[in-house]
Amino acid sequence: MNIKISGVGSFIPTTIQLNQEFNNHEFLNNDGTKFDQENEVIIEKFKAITGIYERRYAKPYHHTSDLAYFAAEKAIDNAQIDPETLDYIIVAHNFGDVKSGTVQTDMVPSIAARVKHSLGIQNPKCVAYDLIFGCPGWLEGVIQAQAFIKAGMAKKCLVIGAETLSRVVDKHDRDSMIFSDGAGATIIEASSDEGGILSHESATYSSNNETYYLNLAASFNQDSCRDTRYIKMNGRKIYEFACLKVPHAMKECLDKSGYGIDDVKKIFIHQANEKMDEAIIKRFYKLYKQLPPENIMPMCIQKLGNSSVATIPTLLDMVKQGKIENHDINKGDIVIFASVGAGMNINAITYKV
Amino acid sequence: MNIKISGVGSFIPTTIQLNQEFNNHEFLNNDGTKFDQENEVIIEKFKAITGIYERRYAKPYHHTSDLAYFAAEKAIDNAQIDPETLDYIIVAHNFGDVKSGTVQTDMVPSIAARVKHSLGIQNPKCVAYDLIFGCPGWLEGVIQAQAFIKAGMAKKCLVIGAETLSRVVDKHDRDSMIFSDGAGATIIEASSDEGGILSHESATYSSNNETYYLNLAASFNQDSCRDTRYIKMNGRKIYEFACLKVPHAMKECLDKSGYGIDDVKKIFIHQANEKMDEAIIKRFYKLYKQLPPENIMPMCIQKLGNSSVATIPTLLDMVKQGKIENHDINKGDIVIFASVGAGMNINAITYKV
Repeated sequence: MNIKISGVGSFIPTTIQLNQEFNNHEFLNNDGTKFDQENEVIIEKFKAITGIYERRYAKPYHHTSDLAYFAAEKAIDNAQIDPETLDYIIVAHNFGDVKSGTVQTDMVPSIAARVKHSLGIQNPKCVAYDLIFGCPGWLEGVIQAQAFIKAGMAKKCLVIGAETLSRVVDKHDRDSMIFSDGAGATIIEASSDEGGILSHESATYSSNNETYYLNLAASFNQDSCRDTRYIKMNGRKIYEFACLKVPHAMKECLDKSGYGIDDVKKIFIHQANEKMDEAIIKRFYKLYKQLPPENIMPMCIQKLGNSSVATIPTLLDMVKQGKIENHDINKGDIVIFASVGAGMNINAITYKV
Repeated sequence: MNIKISGVGSFIPTTIQLNQEFNNHEFLNNDGTKFDQENEVIIEKFKAITGIYERRYAKPYHHTSDLAYFAAEKAIDNAQIDPETLDYIIVAHNFGDVKSGTVQTDMVPSIAARVKHSLGIQNPKCVAYDLIFGCPGWLEGVIQAQAFIKAGMAKKCLVIGAETLSRVVDKHDRDSMIFSDGAGATIIEASSDEGGILSHESATYSSNNETYYLNLAASFNQDSCRDTRYIKMNGRKIYEFACLKVPHAMKECLDKSGYGIDDVKKIFIHQANEKMDEAIIKRFYKLYKQLPPENIMPMCIQKLGNSSVATIPTLLDMVKQGKIENHDINKGDIVIFASVGAGMNINAITYKV
């Protein structure tokens, strides 16, 4: 028995937020002092590092669970399955539903239960739960779906990553420009077809200070309420950590699959930061004493920003739909999925299409 | 190979909140109007239905992740394992860390990653994630641990339920008296010992309006901020739903185990409401044309209130420690665990001690 991604779908919000729309933001240092530079310069530097020149924001009347539902519908259609046959609905996120203009997380009931309700699934044996694992949540959901299938507890699982990060950013923090909203969904199925998930790796690094490299903290604007907290990153530390650890996790994963570096056709990596992703890939190939081949790594961060758990399934959907220039995947291709994020968590899957 | 609970521990906060401490609360109907009755009468009625006469609240400087860590330490001690050998840390909760006096959920990083950090575990292959599944979250975590062990992905898992519900209640809602704080933890292990998990059942009911029987909503006090939301229950609907569905889930679970109703020595049911739990047990035995035997159902709700995901592992720990009068469990006993909560989710496990 193999375990395959039999369907994929994504929901990309239609509201585009351009870099220039941050021109009137008051960006501050973390001690509340002003930057020496003009916003135009800050934004240009930001673009040079992250690659982002625009990102998507959800409509104010949509929640994370709505985005998740829209993506789920498409994945179900794509897999051509009866949703009543789903054994699990797993939704990865980090903030639950956050109503526009407020700061409270709502996950009572779980986002997965809301998606199930929206899909109109009657079968009570379709178990819906949420998974909190930082940005690697969607990929970890696939690994959990694999476990349920291997354990004989499931045959078909819907695994979704959805987030509305635009609602949890500090507008005085330059990093607010990184984050975006979106959802990606996949159907994970037991299959008699060749291929599927060949190997996986998961890790949580919490022995040093990594645990709080990504956390919630008060605004850089010292006059704002100290109890209202926003997503914060120690960007430099995360960069160093990711470049050091992710390539090794990917290598361990690939080596376990039985395939070699020359077999790898595509690498779908969490869209966190263009320069960081490029550095990770470079170091990954360096472990095999090679340079990364051209067109190995499709990217969508430039236009979509970092939507956390949603980036990889969204990117996969775009590539499958031929929406990323010079990138396609074909039957038999060996691909790697890899992610890194809050925890700090890292994971990877080697997959044969 | 069998899958057993090899260790259990709980953290019961030391701050006791008595029923009479609610005497000065202004309880309101859900439309904001005042009750006709005196608080003494309201509290007396509350006690008659729920059985609760006191509950525990966490110290203001402790968070859900602290409670989870305290319980985890005890479970690890109890199982006499090296924490570095843990393959998973799974923490079930519904609100993450909520700082006392604020309303924001914090689960960046996940509560499980914080617990791992506090435990000082260095092994990155110990994967830490949070599970959102309403009150049945801890039991679902055990079911997931079982899946990882069966799939060959784990040998030892730490499964925790922790919550600080005192921070998410509407003081104008009588139901605020139900909720409490606490944490329970268990080590789930592959074992060559006889017994362990014999069968399980999981379900998510979201076809009708069940999905929102438990949800977040504004205070009954119409003058309060409409954007600040608190845990709310449609108590009557939940009561009806639980009495109808939980006994059948328990029966399905027990029947799958190969054991009969007369073999059952103890039932550990989510401590939601004394009368409701009694009604569920009565209906469960009615499905076998029997009356519940004496001392089948240990309870701690009277003194600890409803701490959501924490109730069952806490109760199990108390029984194992001989802290619940007329209740003990012994090698070879068949016991049932069952829970119901937001989702609406239901689950059950048949277990041989």
